[in-house]
Amino acid sequence: MEIIRSNFKDNLNKVYEAIEEADFLAIDGEFSGISDGPSVSTLTNGFDTPEERYQKLKKHSMDFLLFQFGLCSFKSDHTEAKYIMKSFNFYIFPKPFNRSSPDVKFVCQSSSIDFLANQGFDFNKVFRNGIPYLNQEEERQLREQYDEKRSQANGAGTLSYISPNATKCPVTIPEDQKKFIERVVEQIEDLIQNEENKSLQLEPCTGSHWDSVLVSHIFCQAIPGIIYLRHYCFQKERYIVISKVDEEERKKREQQKQAKEQEELSDAVGFSRVIHAIANSGKLVVGHNMLLDVMHTIHQFYCPLPEVSGLVSLQLLDTKLMASTQPFKEIINNTSLAELEKRLKKIPFNPPEVESAEGFPSYDTASEQLHEAGYDAYITGLCFISMANYLGSFLSPPKDHVSARSKLIEPFFNKLFLMRVMDIPYLNLEGPDLQPKRDHVLHVTFPKEWKTSDLYQLFSAFGNILVSWIDDTSAFVSLSQPEQVQIAVNTSRYAESYRIQTYAEYVEKKHEEKQA
Amino acid sequence: MEIIRSNFKDNLNKVYEAIEEADFLAIDGEFSGISDGPSVSTLTNGFDTPEERYQKLKKHSMDFLLFQFGLCSFKSDHTEAKYIMKSFNFYIFPKPFNRSSPDVKFVCQSSSIDFLANQGFDFNKVFRNGIPYLNQEEERQLREQYDEKRSQANGAGTLSYISPNATKCPVTIPEDQKKFIERVVEQIEDLIQNEENKSLQLEPCTGSHWDSVLVSHIFCQAIPGIIYLRHYCFQKERYIVISKVDEEERKKREQQKQAKEQEELSDAVGFSRVIHAIANSGKLVVGHNMLLDVMHTIHQFYCPLPEVSGLVSLQLLDTKLMASTQPFKEIINNTSLAELEKRLKKIPFNPPEVESAEGFPSYDTASEQLHEAGYDAYITGLCFISMANYLGSFLSPPKDHVSARSKLIEPFFNKLFLMRVMDIPYLNLEGPDLQPKRDHVLHVTFPKEWKTSDLYQLFSAFGNILVSWIDDTSAFVSLSQPEQVQIAVNTSRYAESYRIQTYAEYVEKKHEEKQA
Ligand SMILES: Nc1nc2c(ncn2[C@@H]2O[C@H](COP(=O)(O)OP(=O)(O)O)[C@@H](O)[C@H]2O)c(=O)[nH]1
Ligand SMILES: Nc1nc2c(ncn2[C@@H]2O[C@H](COP(=O)(O)OP(=O)(O)O)[C@@H](O)[C@H]2O)c(=O)[nH]1
Repeated sequence: MEIIRSNFKDNLNKVYEAIEEADFLAIDGEFSGISDGPSVSTLTNGFDTPEERYQKLKKHSMDFLLFQFGLCSFKSDHTEAKYIMKSFNFYIFPKPFNRSSPDVKFVCQSSSIDFLANQGFDFNKVFRNGIPYLNQEEERQLREQYDEKRSQANGAGTLSYISPNATKCPVTIPEDQKKFIERVVEQIEDLIQNEENKSLQLEPCTGSHWDSVLVSHIFCQAIPGIIYLRHYCFQKERYIVISKVDEEERKKREQQKQAKEQEELSDAVGFSRVIHAIANSGKLVVGHNMLLDVMHTIHQFYCPLPEVSGLVSLQLLDTKLMASTQPFKEIINNTSLAELEKRLKKIPFNPPEVESAEGFPSYDTASEQLHEAGYDAYITGLCFISMANYLGSFLSPPKDHVSARSKLIEPFFNKLFLMRVMDIPYLNLEGPDLQPKRDHVLHVTFPKEWKTSDLYQLFSAFGNILVSWIDDTSAFVSLSQPEQVQIAVNTSRYAESYRIQTYAEYVEKKHEEKQA
Repeated sequence: MEIIRSNFKDNLNKVYEAIEEADFLAIDGEFSGISDGPSVSTLTNGFDTPEERYQKLKKHSMDFLLFQFGLCSFKSDHTEAKYIMKSFNFYIFPKPFNRSSPDVKFVCQSSSIDFLANQGFDFNKVFRNGIPYLNQEEERQLREQYDEKRSQANGAGTLSYISPNATKCPVTIPEDQKKFIERVVEQIEDLIQNEENKSLQLEPCTGSHWDSVLVSHIFCQAIPGIIYLRHYCFQKERYIVISKVDEEERKKREQQKQAKEQEELSDAVGFSRVIHAIANSGKLVVGHNMLLDVMHTIHQFYCPLPEVSGLVSLQLLDTKLMASTQPFKEIINNTSLAELEKRLKKIPFNPPEVESAEGFPSYDTASEQLHEAGYDAYITGLCFISMANYLGSFLSPPKDHVSARSKLIEPFFNKLFLMRVMDIPYLNLEGPDLQPKRDHVLHVTFPKEWKTSDLYQLFSAFGNILVSWIDDTSAFVSLSQPEQVQIAVNTSRYAESYRIQTYAEYVEKKHEEKQA
């Protein structure tokens, strides 16, 4: 189901319901880019530590916009053999909702935009009809703005504003404006005294700065008892209308205004409410290669990204990590989402039985709609079900269906796949990261003119090597034999143009630099 | 006429012709945003000097994308009473054209995107069908890449590659690959010797890194005389096909390849070719409030922005500046483009007679299509013609029509309108900027909790004041009486929370800081 700005509010309860009743949720996001600095392959160096990778993504990937969010809820029917699925494809855009609201700047990366364009991605839908959102801090600020406005309006209490010479006057009225104000005061007093008159239109303000300031100050003060103000603009002139209302009417208007403000606030928080609902549900959230999705979601709809340890109070499961781990690793060659989904329909796996809920459109996995977030979330869910069920075959007696609450899948919780890291499969959100042996790895620095072939040349005596570029002038080089590491370092001792150190030395030096 | 990626090449000659024959050109650009830092009103402070304004825009506005460019050519017919107009609306997008081409990141500002979305702007057309471009440096680099590839291919000359033990071998072949290479060498020798065989398919490469390196090195070397190589991938395996061709055939292929490369290069330079043509034409280029358009055009399609003095070798004319200057200033109230266009159809002006050229669609000024760049360029041209013609009424005898080459309009050349600067109407591209008297202006610093009302309070003794915010903690305050400036400074001498200095003091201090 496609959700845009205009049908968001009407469908929000459907979304809440889907989250509430779900056994698990699957999500996916589409972003306006990946890296605003280094090339993608430098951003994802093969020997990053999980912490380094997280920090790099935090620094170089968060200025992009998550502009499509797919959410798919899966609920098993009573037999546990079949899932009922509801899928939502949200378009997201930080439309500023008033003059003082944040005017978000986001980055677009041409290659990512071009990629999505080739998939038929609808940018017009994002920019014209995207649902707005606020993070927690922005929501707090907006709430404060409203509160302040209200307390100003309520707190005034005296008629000080009507006397240009009063000492309590909230603004100092300049000489040349006093005439204008005096006339206004007279007219208002007239209105109050005169039973017949119900309202009064002031002479048009000339639009000079002073008038606006006065007008807004008059507005900021509730006029005690019986006076109600509004203004309108017509042909660039600003007209102020003052009318009498009784206390009851005033209260009613006040309440209406508050209700309207509440609604405006809700509208501004917008899509973030869906994220809040997911977070509060405590449901298992499944994604494919989901690190960036999770980071963007927190950053855009919640708060600045915390340290890894503070990342998550949810239960996350990454299907790419699951597929790369025992017992799946051996029987799955290609863990990219589309390939995985195809593979998991075949022996020894079984295609899961999943039906769209009534009133929800169904996706057809035969005619792929890859890279629509809603569809990607859907097939991520399918992958998860297939793999979970497969785990049941190891039980005795074997079980055909394994639920999202089963102990069998707990080992996969909160471990997020790390792309292209050679020897550490995941970022562990709940404990210390794995510490791989990197005793076959060298850190090499060299002039920026060097090419990959120069490195092959340099290490030609050491058989097969593998180069992981860090930047223009440094790279990790892994040798096939750890014993040769020291030899390589020794031979470089007197080299002038390049320098070789062991991975351990490199880490230590970096640590020292950090301390200093 | 709408120009996108797919019809760009076919219409380029039409564009060139329109530029060549034009009396003058009108341009307009649409950008993905205005300011990536300060709010727009801080970016355009009322007391910026022209130089400061230029530097601020350079710093805060150039990371946005100019994604629509309007160009309109105007050519007077023989009577000089009527113009023939050709209008082009280009969609622009830096689609990366290969793996090593620049992957441009650009910023979008939500408020600008939202504004354009409300006008019905077609973002899909930009991102799916935008014309690519390169600036001069990128073009140079790409040309170099092609040259390098070619000289590598031509320069090889020996059969060194076929001998794994040859000293001239361009790559060091590792032990475990030598067998593979030896087999390849044998097969190639066979092919050369054997008259009947015309081509040969090598065993599939396993896709390991070494194979790719070797493959590319073989490719980088033209095989002397009779051998031609190509490769293809099939089901993730890489097949290399080697075939014999005679010298004539080889040359023909070489030429075809060069022609193709030339064309690729041209395609990559893309829309920049239109800008080159405009620049080389020496024609008068008219724009409305065109400073940002000019800056974006240079920055995106030419080179990093130079100092103001090096900005322009064109003749530019800004219709907003013209309309704000004598003799128009007095009779034109509102210089915003749409209002100006309406005003200039009425007495004492005459609506210009303009016709679309054959085969070009015409715009209807009655049903406005504002904020399509092509349309905005068009009505900018109309405004220019009306105003130019009006200048003819001051001649004796009066002239109804004043051409773009008339001396009468020269006073307006190369002066670009400065938005919201109080007392300096334009940035002068050709000489020193105006030096306004700012002896009624104060520079005030204060705690960031202060609001505009605090400033009014502070200066309440001085009558009407005008506040121009610089940032959170400073602003310019102009008094109506220059004599009061010194009084204000004196009264603040012992203030702790704020500081007041004269504009002259402020400028001097800033100058000193710059020196240090
Ligand atoms: N000096 C040098 N640096 C390189 C070379 N290749 C890659 N790099 C560096 O490593 C980064 C990643 O390059 P690469 O692995 O080819 O990834 P890609 O740019 O995404 O294709 C580049 O941005 C450079 O900083 C090279 O041949 N010479
Ligand atoms: N301390 C303080 N700074 C302000 C105030 N109003 C504006 N500013 C500063 O001036 C900048 C421009 O504000 P303003 O002129 O209102 O422009 P706008 O933000 O585009 O509406 C803001 O980003 C602030 O840095 C104020 O009331 N108090």
